[in-house]
Amino acid sequence: MNKQVVAGIDIGGTKIALALETLAGERVAARRLPTTVELGPERILENVARSIEEMLAETGTKLTAIGIGCPGPIDIERGLALSPTNLPEWIDFPLVETIKKRFCVPTVLDNDANAAALGEYFYGAGRGFRDMLYVTISTGIGGAIICEGNIHHGVGASAGEVGHTIVKPDGRLCLCGTKGCLETIASGLSIARRMRETLAASNGKTTEDLDRITAETVVEAVKKADETAQKIWDETIKFLAVGIGNAITLIAPEAVIIGGGVSEAGELLLKPLRCEIGKNVTMLPIEKVEILKASLGSESGVCGALILARQAVKKMHENVY
Amino acid sequence: MNKQVVAGIDIGGTKIALALETLAGERVAARRLPTTVELGPERILENVARSIEEMLAETGTKLTAIGIGCPGPIDIERGLALSPTNLPEWIDFPLVETIKKRFCVPTVLDNDANAAALGEYFYGAGRGFRDMLYVTISTGIGGAIICEGNIHHGVGASAGEVGHTIVKPDGRLCLCGTKGCLETIASGLSIARRMRETLAASNGKTTEDLDRITAETVVEAVKKADETAQKIWDETIKFLAVGIGNAITLIAPEAVIIGGGVSEAGELLLKPLRCEIGKNVTMLPIEKVEILKASLGSESGVCGALILARQAVKKMHENVY
Repeated sequence: MNKQVVAGIDIGGTKIALALETLAGERVAARRLPTTVELGPERILENVARSIEEMLAETGTKLTAIGIGCPGPIDIERGLALSPTNLPEWIDFPLVETIKKRFCVPTVLDNDANAAALGEYFYGAGRGFRDMLYVTISTGIGGAIICEGNIHHGVGASAGEVGHTIVKPDGRLCLCGTKGCLETIASGLSIARRMRETLAASNGKTTEDLDRITAETVVEAVKKADETAQKIWDETIKFLAVGIGNAITLIAPEAVIIGGGVSEAGELLLKPLRCEIGKNVTMLPIEKVEILKASLGSESGVCGALILARQAVKKMHENVY
Repeated sequence: MNKQVVAGIDIGGTKIALALETLAGERVAARRLPTTVELGPERILENVARSIEEMLAETGTKLTAIGIGCPGPIDIERGLALSPTNLPEWIDFPLVETIKKRFCVPTVLDNDANAAALGEYFYGAGRGFRDMLYVTISTGIGGAIICEGNIHHGVGASAGEVGHTIVKPDGRLCLCGTKGCLETIASGLSIARRMRETLAASNGKTTEDLDRITAETVVEAVKKADETAQKIWDETIKFLAVGIGNAITLIAPEAVIIGGGVSEAGELLLKPLRCEIGKNVTMLPIEKVEILKASLGSESGVCGALILARQAVKKMHENVY
């Protein structure tokens, strides 16, 4: 009999990561495809399905379940992608139905932050903790809460959105419609924007100079002791410590795992962040909350998708026996 | 054979509520004792124990477990009261051991906000919801999270402290040691203090007038269309909507139940609060989150203590069978 495997699909704006693992957790195959957005969702998923079929054939394995991570907003119950920012053509697209029809196995969908959080919890920096808050700081700021190995979904399956907690009442208007969200200050885009605004106001930089500024160049400038960049960075840390600190005060997780592009700053981010959070969180022994960098990089999503599939298999067995 | 019952003990700064219920949930006896603080914890608990013995004798019932709610800080694992503000003599007092020695049944301790939240979840305004955030606005602001019928404790058993989330960075110093906590603006004490400060700055009120101001008198003045009181109240609502809104964005509970003395303002509080929260929470369908007044009043704590006892009985059975 063929060895049973689960498949993980992590759909991103530029790449799609695929992987197969045995039920014991052994990785037997992995692939990456470009997200050729202009092909549209049907043909992209056709390519995904064909790749999985090839991987199954090559490894002589039998598929038992599929997990999918996809950028939000999504409808988990109905298995739909609801026009994610990076995939604007995927309007109410029946992601789960399309895949399920092809493979006839249980197929579970969750959003990319939740999938990445699950990945870090079971394979990465979150291993061994009971409850975990995951925060991803990249273009925007996403988040997820894992309680004893399960995603805490909550109403609308949208819990954990630390990026849209208000840290500066009456602050800048966020794309989400409210004012002063953490994302308006500390996301990659906002860090770059604040640096541009400060430089534009203070001296004669050209538009070209300003256009080149990203969160990454701000981090590089901090490393070179640039004063303006340091001020922007200090403010970033300050408000991250309010938002993440508030989440710790509320949820009291054993670990906060920080991923996303901005987390690549490493200890330049984490050391002052731990210090500021220590001042903001007073109701619990903060030394018992580990604040760590995510360890799986771009692998977290597909790892989490595999866990989603594995949890679907487990659920199936519980319902049968 | 005598009918089996559980006992609930709710220890407060001024009163102690006791109740017995059958395992089926029928209330068979209840009492209230004054918390005669000057007697010290040993003699107070002796009175509590004797009252429970009398209630058991009067009803001809047999005790199977005890739940205790006590103001924090407490040590749940070791069953200690750690000098609560209202009970300053209870320094590392072995509450669970003292009661357990007397009755020889499983005895569970939790803090008063967690107990009150459990009470509202199973007997009160929180019935029928999956996950619930409980917020109590009285002298201070406490909170608790109930997930599928269980208290979410987290690190240090201190999750849910919405009163100590920061809603105004660099704001007023809180007793907890950080700045700009929700409690520094919206607790009963803070509402009264802000009213006093505003009036003292604006006109010739006497010290006596100012000393009479409480959160309750502010609410009464709002009802009488007092402009200053309305301004204080609006600001209270604004920051409650930031703190509670942030908690909703993070936890996405099906219900927020608001108790404590300030919640007695009823719709004067809840109506504008729902409106402001609606503006602040954008990542989930806020119309699916019920924001309601607690319905048990001072009974919530003892109801929750009974649930703690009932959960201890259930756990015992699970371990045996």
